[in-house]
Parts: sequence; C-alpha cells; structure tokens
Amino acid sequence: MTRDITDFIRTIPDFPQKGVMFRDVTTLFGNPEGMKLAVAQIVDAFKDTEITAVAGLEARGFIIGGAVAERLGTGFVPLRKKGKLPGKTLSEDYTLEYGTATIEVHDDALKAGDKVLLIDDLIATGGTAAAGIKLVERLGATVVHAAFIIDLPDLGGAQVVRDLGVPVTALCAYDGD
Amino acid sequence: MTRDITDFIRTIPDFPQKGVMFRDVTTLFGNPEGMKLAVAQIVDAFKDTEITAVAGLEARGFIIGGAVAERLGTGFVPLRKKGKLPGKTLSEDYTLEYGTATIEVHDDALKAGDKVLLIDDLIATGGTAAAGIKLVERLGATVVHAAFIIDLPDLGGAQVVRDLGVPVTALCAYDGD
Repeated sequence: MTRDITDFIRTIPDFPQKGVMFRDVTTLFGNPEGMKLAVAQIVDAFKDTEITAVAGLEARGFIIGGAVAERLGTGFVPLRKKGKLPGKTLSEDYTLEYGTATIEVHDDALKAGDKVLLIDDLIATGGTAAAGIKLVERLGATVVHAAFIIDLPDLGGAQVVRDLGVPVTALCAYDGD
Repeated sequence: MTRDITDFIRTIPDFPQKGVMFRDVTTLFGNPEGMKLAVAQIVDAFKDTEITAVAGLEARGFIIGGAVAERLGTGFVPLRKKGKLPGKTLSEDYTLEYGTATIEVHDDALKAGDKVLLIDDLIATGGTAAAGIKLVERLGATVVHAAFIIDLPDLGGAQVVRDLGVPVTALCAYDGD
C-alpha cells in the first residue's frame, strides 16, 4: 500500500502558542519510509531541471534540503539566522507576528547565473521564504522554484512567493490553519 | 585528480571570537563535489552496518545527517536546542566555555534497541556530542558510532566520546586548534 506524506506528519496542538496546530515533520524525517518519500518526491520533480544549487532555510530546511541537494548532485547553501555564518554575509529582515527576524547568506555562496531551488519544511505566511528569495537575488542568482513539504494555504505564503515570480511546489497542504 | 575533504573547507580567523580559527564547512556543502564526497565517505563507512537511525546535532549536523540518513535508508532524528521541538522532550545540559546550553530530543524519537549513528559537522571539546549520546541512551537506544566531518584533536572531544564507549570516525582533522 502506498503511503502518503501526511501519514507521517503529526499535529501537536498549542505549539508554540495556544491555538496553533503545529504540523510536526520530525515524525516524517524519523521514519525511514517517510524520509525516503519526502526526498524522492522533491528530487523527482526537479531532477531533469536546470537547478545548480539548493538553498535551505534554517533549521528544518537543512534536513530535507541537504538530502535533496546530495541526490540532485548540487551544492547546498544554508540561509541562516543572524550571527551564525562565519564569513561575510548579506542579511534580510522579515516580519514575524511580533517583531522582526533576520536571515543571512554568505556573500560568496552563490554566483550570477546560479539557478536555485529554495527549500523549507513548511510555508505559512511566506515571510522567511520571501526574505530567502531576496537574499539569493542580491547575489545575482535566481530562485527558479520553491519547494516545501507542507503548505498552509489559508496563511497565503505560497501566493506571496508566486507573486515574487517563483513557482511553488508543496508535497501536501493543511486547510483551516 | 581525487580531491580531499579539506580542499573544500575554508578557515575563517577570529570567529566567533578573537583567536579562534573557525573551520567553515559551508564551502564544502556548497560545492557539488564536496557535498557528494562528504556524504559518500560517511555512507560507505556505515552502509553494511546495523544502524537503524541517524541522529544529527543542530544545526550543521542536520545538513549532513539528513543526507546520510536518506542514503542509508534510515530515519533522521534531530537533536535540537532548547524549546524548538514541539512534542514531549528529554533534555541534557552541557557546558560551554562560558555557561551552559541544553539540547533536547522527542521522547518518542527512538525506541529500545535502536542502533544510532550520531552525526555533527565538527567535534571540538565533545560537550554537545556527549550530551547527545546521553539523550539517545535515555531513550533506551544505543549510539553505536559517532561521525564528524572535522576533528580538532587538540581539544580532546573525540577521546571524550570514545571514553563513553562510542567509536569515532572523522573525515579529516586540524591540529593546533
């Protein structure tokens, strides 16, 4: 019997705060079949494309993004929280529900002409993904596609990314979040 | 010409503080050949072993650990900084140069009898790795091996891990750090 991605994802109510239904991918990654399935579904979608690099958003995007990059035969570029990268960086601020946060990329992590697949585990409001796209573009590279394991369409993030001219693939979606 | 892991690693002086020579694996991960080589060297060492799960330390251990787990056909278990995991957790404190830090694991991430490969990018003093081993063992599982891209032998961490009964593999070493 073929299992679906959602068979491996669990929902934890009230994390990180009351009223949020947190979609937990650690049970997907922790299952050998789930890990294989998630990586294979993304790799199959992009293996015959022109992608030259995978960029992953800290931290869950590192788990899936590293595996996808290795299978696609590209390098992996971490987009990290402020202060974590040791070399010279570019940074982008983005808005959270309360306040702002910052992500950074090494200023030599990509080159002009690179065609980048942006990866994270989940897209919600799209703030982090949009900041990641801006960082990649400031390096002269192009985000040709963004891939997520989970889309929360009610929060509109996939549309935010599409409005930046970047097509979006998600392996599953949860409505009503 | 066969290239060595160290060909892809760069050194950044004075990060995160004056006097530290920071060994930066982002240039290894960012290079298609480097990413392939690092994952292949670890996978080749463990592909015919009894490992049932890979546990990776946040955050650079996620990049290499996810890829290794997927290639080995096991699940991946993230060992995360405090407050990041949504489910019920066990936690272990460990000592840093100044103060302490805490890592956590979901209390159902591994089961008794699991044989775990612990992965991180670098072993220095071994505090994080030792805390990770304790977490895995508190779940009834066993760390059968620990693998790192870089060992800094002068800091003694590999010996700390071996003293816990866990064999250590590192893909390269930098003396004098």
